[in-house]
Amino acid sequence: MRTRPLKVALLGCGVVGSEVARIMTTHADDLAARIGAPVELAGVAVRRPDKVREGIDPSLVTTDATALVKRGDIDVVVEVIGGIEPARTLITTAFEHGASVVSANKALLAQDGAALHAAADENGKDLYYEAAVAGAIPLIRPLRESLAGDKVNRVLGIVNGTTNFILDKMDSTGAGYQEALDEATALGYAEADPTADVEGFDAAAKAAILAGIAFHTRVRLDDVYREGMTEVTAADFASAKEMGCTIKLLAICERAADGASVTARVHPAMIPLSHPLASVRGAYNAVFVESDAAGQLMFYGPGAGGSPTASAVLGDLVAVCRNRLSGATGPGESAYAALPVSPMGDVVTRYHISLDVADKPGVLAQVATVFAEHGVSIDTVRQQGKDGEASLVVVTHRASDAALGGTVEALRKLDTVRGVASIMRVEGE
Amino acid sequence: MRTRPLKVALLGCGVVGSEVARIMTTHADDLAARIGAPVELAGVAVRRPDKVREGIDPSLVTTDATALVKRGDIDVVVEVIGGIEPARTLITTAFEHGASVVSANKALLAQDGAALHAAADENGKDLYYEAAVAGAIPLIRPLRESLAGDKVNRVLGIVNGTTNFILDKMDSTGAGYQEALDEATALGYAEADPTADVEGFDAAAKAAILAGIAFHTRVRLDDVYREGMTEVTAADFASAKEMGCTIKLLAICERAADGASVTARVHPAMIPLSHPLASVRGAYNAVFVESDAAGQLMFYGPGAGGSPTASAVLGDLVAVCRNRLSGATGPGESAYAALPVSPMGDVVTRYHISLDVADKPGVLAQVATVFAEHGVSIDTVRQQGKDGEASLVVVTHRASDAALGGTVEALRKLDTVRGVASIMRVEGE
Repeated sequence: MRTRPLKVALLGCGVVGSEVARIMTTHADDLAARIGAPVELAGVAVRRPDKVREGIDPSLVTTDATALVKRGDIDVVVEVIGGIEPARTLITTAFEHGASVVSANKALLAQDGAALHAAADENGKDLYYEAAVAGAIPLIRPLRESLAGDKVNRVLGIVNGTTNFILDKMDSTGAGYQEALDEATALGYAEADPTADVEGFDAAAKAAILAGIAFHTRVRLDDVYREGMTEVTAADFASAKEMGCTIKLLAICERAADGASVTARVHPAMIPLSHPLASVRGAYNAVFVESDAAGQLMFYGPGAGGSPTASAVLGDLVAVCRNRLSGATGPGESAYAALPVSPMGDVVTRYHISLDVADKPGVLAQVATVFAEHGVSIDTVRQQGKDGEASLVVVTHRASDAALGGTVEALRKLDTVRGVASIMRVEGE
Repeated sequence: MRTRPLKVALLGCGVVGSEVARIMTTHADDLAARIGAPVELAGVAVRRPDKVREGIDPSLVTTDATALVKRGDIDVVVEVIGGIEPARTLITTAFEHGASVVSANKALLAQDGAALHAAADENGKDLYYEAAVAGAIPLIRPLRESLAGDKVNRVLGIVNGTTNFILDKMDSTGAGYQEALDEATALGYAEADPTADVEGFDAAAKAAILAGIAFHTRVRLDDVYREGMTEVTAADFASAKEMGCTIKLLAICERAADGASVTARVHPAMIPLSHPLASVRGAYNAVFVESDAAGQLMFYGPGAGGSPTASAVLGDLVAVCRNRLSGATGPGESAYAALPVSPMGDVVTRYHISLDVADKPGVLAQVATVFAEHGVSIDTVRQQGKDGEASLVVVTHRASDAALGGTVEALRKLDTVRGVASIMRVEGE
């Protein structure tokens, strides 16, 4: 074993960073044995240098992250700051000064993955980011290495723990969205400003990363259709139950049936209770992958938290260190397929639509006509009437999102349709 | 991209091998793009050369596997023959003649993994075998790479599809073992001689491989305690249901509480219905991994079959080819921890024991005394009496297998105990 240690610079020392530093110390012997050389924490860049950080030598702490990544003797920079800047500039600077990079930064990877990969390649360095998607769950490596000989057709995932906690709570207790969110906040599962989670921004970043790797195609955050879950109601869960379904916020990356394009989207959807994703409880994450040869795979585990995320970061750190020692680099960006990313209107799925309608003869015929005119085939219709008001629940066969959108627009114009109470996609069948 | 192709020799062209060859042809462009060079099927060793093999150039077919692996121009040998010999000699010969090896051979890896890894290392070559455990499910790579910075404490898996199909059938229909086996055979899930599956030999080989990688310790097939599932009865399933459990044939690899030793075992066990493994249906496989930092992870998918196994083989093939091009090798055997493998007697778990006893006063006191004398603490006891005969169902707290064994031996000697109807371990709590 080599005795000269590999030097690691840690950018950020919050929940994840402090756990990375802790494990690097407590498991130093194991890491050395697995890498083939000791690893040494050579510097820690933080914003608040005066904060006491248990187990971290204060002489390693600096507020000058730029100087740290420019030192020239750093083998691996671990970036757990998050956000676009200064993380992006620091990572690029690290490559230019001879370091490889391990990052947990989903927002940055989703926005600028191609440029960062290019910077890594130009400098012959590694860029690893297993922790950016679904915390501890090995996903990036299985997708880009284990399934490298296969053709992935679909990735269907619960990739945000906060929203899964909220939806699970609504499902199991009948609570409304606000009540469930309040509980998630009280328990620390939701942040004070939950927007990034509940509006699907976090999941959309992960969808972009997963789609890119799965389809060997650049997929940016802007390419991902996004719909949050703040408008999911207790009534939606009641409807889902009648369908033998539950509701999850899903990240869905699909290859079109003809193989010539892909789509990526995040939105709440009904999935059958028999689907493995339906039983993913609390803040857990799970990702279901469908491929030509392997068939259906699922990866399940904690999607966030300091320790789980640190586990993923350290797995990457070991891999990158091994690569340094052997003078090689791991698989870089694979975007050779360069498939077009289709807009949401091209997505084909099933829909569950609840309409408030006048309770009089001929309404169903009118509604059915509108569906037919837009080429959306109806699977089932259920009518419930009371006191001159009625509701119609329509479940469609597979249709494009554009066709469904046109149908709904036309339905809203009917005199007999008082309102469209909810539209929910049905997935995983 | 390099234009000179990497040459692949295929040993075996059965269910898996023919699928590997097919995908190498149909997905040649994708594989080339992902590897950075084309791959070419340079030879196929078979036993029956006259059999028509669709899509395979007859001029590549040979019965002389030894000459094929000795050719010297082969980059990667894919071994999908199975069994110990001639596979072992062919793999070693391949290393000596400059090739890296991808194998799906669980029996060989479990028996001679250390020697094969040593041969690979001596020759600076790769030995990859993702397909040896749980078919298409990425497990070897996540355990040895993604979790390389973590400490795995437990691996709990359903790693044999045949037995899971049988047990699932018994659970869902109330069928007995033979009836369920007959159905598995009729549907092609069980072989004509199902011994390797139902007696746990197949699962034990996989347990040895998983334990070795998870604990960075050599674990051989002989180190794995093995109990088949042919004696599981419909009555056992009824007992399990009363406990809120089902029964699965589990491969369990554990680090002892003090961290100083490990165990590996295969046997049927009750697990709670709330455990993610309980809902693994049919011939699917799933492996649950518990580690210090990541927490609880689960990997799920098809554990066998030509296409899924080929997916795993091809993922390895891409990785090994990339390593060839970069002049590096992937992670080899990691056995530095060299922990002792403890015997079954040291395993600590809970037990569900059904006793047929005389229905008279004092029996429960006698039985309870025997448990206490052997240091096995009782959690619950349920008595059912009828016509002078009675049954006692005892569920224990955690105790060593040795203590439980002593208890059962002593119970059998009691006049009032007519027989020990069943003993089943309770896991996953």
